Amino acid sequence: MPSATGEKLWIIPDGYIPELSSGALTSHESICVLNTASEDAQLSITIFFEDREPIEDIWEVVPARRTKHIRTSSLAKEGKSIPIAVPYAIEVKSDIPVIVQYSRLDATQAENALMSVIAYPVK
Amino acid sequence: MPSATGEKLWIIPDGYIPELSSGALTSHESICVLNTASEDAQLSITIFFEDREPIEDIWEVVPARRTKHIRTSSLAKEGKSIPIAVPYAIEVKSDIPVIVQYSRLDATQAENALMSVIAYPVK
Amino acid sequence: MPSATGEKLWIIPDGYIPELSSGALTSHESICVLNTASEDAQLSITIFFEDREPIEDIWEVVPARRTKHIRTSSLAKEGKSIPIAVPYAIEVKSDIPVIVQYSRLDATQAENALMSVIAYPVK
Amino acid sequence: MPSATGEKLWIIPDGYIPELSSGALTSHESICVLNTASEDAQLSITIFFEDREPIEDIWEVVPARRTKHIRTSSLAKEGKSIPIAVPYAIEVKSDIPVIVQYSRLDATQAENALMSVIAYPVK
Repeated sequence: MPSATGEKLWIIPDGYIPELSSGALTSHESICVLNTASEDAQLSITIFFEDREPIEDIWEVVPARRTKHIRTSSLAKEGKSIPIAVPYAIEVKSDIPVIVQYSRLDATQAENALMSVIAYPVK
Repeated sequence: MPSATGEKLWIIPDGYIPELSSGALTSHESICVLNTASEDAQLSITIFFEDREPIEDIWEVVPARRTKHIRTSSLAKEGKSIPIAVPYAIEVKSDIPVIVQYSRLDATQAENALMSVIAYPVK
Repeated sequence: MPSATGEKLWIIPDGYIPELSSGALTSHESICVLNTASEDAQLSITIFFEDREPIEDIWEVVPARRTKHIRTSSLAKEGKSIPIAVPYAIEVKSDIPVIVQYSRLDATQAENALMSVIAYPVK
Repeated sequence: MPSATGEKLWIIPDGYIPELSSGALTSHESICVLNTASEDAQLSITIFFEDREPIEDIWEVVPARRTKHIRTSSLAKEGKSIPIAVPYAIEVKSDIPVIVQYSRLDATQAENALMSVIAYPVK
């Protein structure tokens, strides 16, 4: 059976949803998760801010032997979502080991800018 | 004798081949591998998707004391390759330790965007 | 009680404040810190240069259960701050474990360029 | 006495010096090294290629308590240097622990693209 790979807790300190888009693409960020195991991974995502309480335990599922690229703008809980143009940070917990990468496409200008990091794995 | 350096299993959760190119350069992604050993490294690459079964065990060789920068668009097995504009993830297995970095040049717009990460090493 | 996560010492070798800005955004760099603990984190930041003595122990606080995205251009001690267009490096010490990411927006040209790394954790 | 921090062996698999520059800035890559110790660090840099023998043991010094941002285009040994527009990989050895980051500014187009990674530390 294919086994789980990675870690159960991942951190991304620099989250930011750009305010504007122009040109052919829309500004967005993605939390990209790979689940190599033969069972689904249950994620619990917490969003931290500079000046307000965290939004805790937003649930997502990554199916067995699949990747999922999650737009942060789609994350929501009890009517609360991440405001645009506000600095925040992301904690991803999983019930089985997974691997997490974070990427941002900034299309504020007509031409795009890209950044990406492997999230920090807590062991 | 020069010895092998790195790890035998590496993960890149955020793979994506941009749909369009404009300007002087072509959009592309590369899996960049370094083999510091005095023997060749046999790679087995598996591609994971969001909504379909993985493409497993695409074979590549990185010669002794050489680097190889592999375009993901060149990866193919039994007529299957990675479709453009689809989120995917990459697993690179090697029979001896190597080091893996992933970079993307997005030339969707006339001006380029670049991103790069050292892949996640599984120990 | 929420516990501290990460490490107490982080390094970023490639610091650089771009000289110019054009277009809608201003060039800047940020040291992005997440403190998951239920107590405040006391940071001590040291800036290293190529040709002069370091600026040592610039103090910052990251409140409990908050993130803080610190502009490097705002760092100052006894009238000394980081000059623009000069290569430097950053050491971030914390009294409790935190996680640190570094990002740079270069708006030298009308269109932006972005880069980001998780800082190197010293264990 | 300030102590050495980091590791003695670092790897960057994706090296590439862009062929062209346009606009206000010149395409370049930098190997950014921080030496936190109270003694100088002696570096030995080896460049690996896809189709030819490595260039081994190019020497550099990073002074005590200083950073050094080394342009890869400046690296040379016995008349050999890194050709432009050719994929290569970098190994940085140091006699004392240091921290290494690699960044590339691509100014092939009028607008810039940036990428950066913390090099892979071999422990």
